[in-house]
Amino acid sequence: MTAVSTQIQLVARPVGWPTHDDFRTVAVELPALADGEVRVNNEFMSVDPYMRGRMNDVKSYTPPFVLGETMTGGAIGRVIASASDELPVGTVVLHQLGWRDIAQADAANFRAVPELPGVPLSAYLGILGMTGLTAYVGLMEIAGLANGETVFISGAAGAVGTAAGQIARLKGASRVIGSAGTAEKVALLTEKYGYDAAFNYKDAPVRQQLADAAPGGIDVYFDNVGGDHLEAALDAFNDGGRAALCGAIVSYNSTERTPGPDNMANIITRGLSLKGFTIGKYLQHFPAFSAEMGSWLSEGKVVFDETVVDGLDNSIDAFLDLMRGANIGKMVVRIS
Amino acid sequence: MTAVSTQIQLVARPVGWPTHDDFRTVAVELPALADGEVRVNNEFMSVDPYMRGRMNDVKSYTPPFVLGETMTGGAIGRVIASASDELPVGTVVLHQLGWRDIAQADAANFRAVPELPGVPLSAYLGILGMTGLTAYVGLMEIAGLANGETVFISGAAGAVGTAAGQIARLKGASRVIGSAGTAEKVALLTEKYGYDAAFNYKDAPVRQQLADAAPGGIDVYFDNVGGDHLEAALDAFNDGGRAALCGAIVSYNSTERTPGPDNMANIITRGLSLKGFTIGKYLQHFPAFSAEMGSWLSEGKVVFDETVVDGLDNSIDAFLDLMRGANIGKMVVRIS
Repeated sequence: MTAVSTQIQLVARPVGWPTHDDFRTVAVELPALADGEVRVNNEFMSVDPYMRGRMNDVKSYTPPFVLGETMTGGAIGRVIASASDELPVGTVVLHQLGWRDIAQADAANFRAVPELPGVPLSAYLGILGMTGLTAYVGLMEIAGLANGETVFISGAAGAVGTAAGQIARLKGASRVIGSAGTAEKVALLTEKYGYDAAFNYKDAPVRQQLADAAPGGIDVYFDNVGGDHLEAALDAFNDGGRAALCGAIVSYNSTERTPGPDNMANIITRGLSLKGFTIGKYLQHFPAFSAEMGSWLSEGKVVFDETVVDGLDNSIDAFLDLMRGANIGKMVVRIS
Repeated sequence: MTAVSTQIQLVARPVGWPTHDDFRTVAVELPALADGEVRVNNEFMSVDPYMRGRMNDVKSYTPPFVLGETMTGGAIGRVIASASDELPVGTVVLHQLGWRDIAQADAANFRAVPELPGVPLSAYLGILGMTGLTAYVGLMEIAGLANGETVFISGAAGAVGTAAGQIARLKGASRVIGSAGTAEKVALLTEKYGYDAAFNYKDAPVRQQLADAAPGGIDVYFDNVGGDHLEAALDAFNDGGRAALCGAIVSYNSTERTPGPDNMANIITRGLSLKGFTIGKYLQHFPAFSAEMGSWLSEGKVVFDETVVDGLDNSIDAFLDLMRGANIGKMVVRIS
């Protein structure tokens, strides 16, 4: 039994902002299933900022996309044909063979996950998956959030940020402050996601707005942005403050090296710690996270947003919109 | 019994490099000893980079020097008059009442230390004191040095740097690399202090020289300098690398904010950690350090250099020379 899989490939390494010319769509005829393989109909795929780094030909924590080959990334779908006893037809599976409508590979590449009542499958690409885990690990393992501390989160209306704000509160933070780039997002932070204070970083210098929002200083900074946000945090930190560096979206599309914060000396005088992380090194925390997040979701203690773009054909636009900050919550592409 | 103490006071806050006009020398008539007080003849006083920060009127980990009052800092001397049973005449004491030839205060301000055969009292201002402890804590507690790792130390010919290089080796580092600012210092690093490789940061970009000296990358960076050295380290770090930020001498005399490293994103992609510290928060490690360093010194496993400047009158010049890097090893002023 053969089938045709529509797939998105990278054909040129973008310089600065990617354009449609850097990609192509191909139709790949899939061979009959080999022993142990499954064929999966992808229902949702993830677009994430880290993918921009993979479009460059540089050594990083994930290997670069190969020119002329189909890109990869988080996806969730349902087994539609199976030559594996472990994953019968109908099984919902989470995997990394995104950027295509039909994925086919050895069963070892797919992980069966339960369908939770009332929770869309796309949640596995966000709050219940790597996105939620990233927020959880950043706050608890990297920054060591303690009860009663003040937390600042940049890119707070994004998928990781909205999760992080709620986790911070549930884990005992006394004050949670967020920044975002539109008035609509800023309103959502305090009205929906339980932030105590939020500001639009385009309204005034971040240094000033953060100082106003955190008159008692901050203890933990969850950094999704870098640049002027990190600089502002270094000024606002109390002694012993800790930053979890998760993203530096301001530099992803820059073709020049961007100068770092101008107040690095505060790291010494205030005894600060900056620690970067990529979630792939912390997957051992998934069981603890997933049990806790599962309870929070089922008890209605955590809410989440998604921006759903329809159609694999629109996946490049979805990715570009994500880089521009057009999403609220996790950005996903609905494939079928 | 009265006496006259010659003391150095700060009279103006330096802008950029301090000049002699920012200081004055005064003769203070000391009153008779009150009950519980001692009078100490200072034999050596310390000049240290952190003192530059105290000349500014900014909140920091040590309070600013008060204009028109005598400055303070590490000193060691001998009790010459005593109204305290705890510190009889002749006791050698370590204390913070430097920048004067005679110190007088309550005995609680002075700590008795043993005279070690063959070791000059000035060692208590350096390798056996805060200098050695700073190197020890930075490597072991802040950076978590592990056996077999490669260590880079900037400002390596300074007091902290020469101690750090030897401690790193004694604690199992497989390769120790240092940078300094003169050919003479660079030679001392490999010939006397056991560094495996050393370079003059003025010869070529630090990035390039560090890459050449550490073909396998670095795991630990002990930063006494900041600026281009920290930037080079961020490029050279292996995954999971740790930086102990101890000093940022390049920015101490700058009147403008200095841009930070242009490669902060490496902190995320390589899972790096940068942690700043000031030794005052880590004094609880002094007993362990002092036992270990005492043994190393007595077994001849650790050597140290001093740059001794004679005369309290020359203490400002000694401080300025220190800021310019004219010293090899700990810079001290011999007072009597």
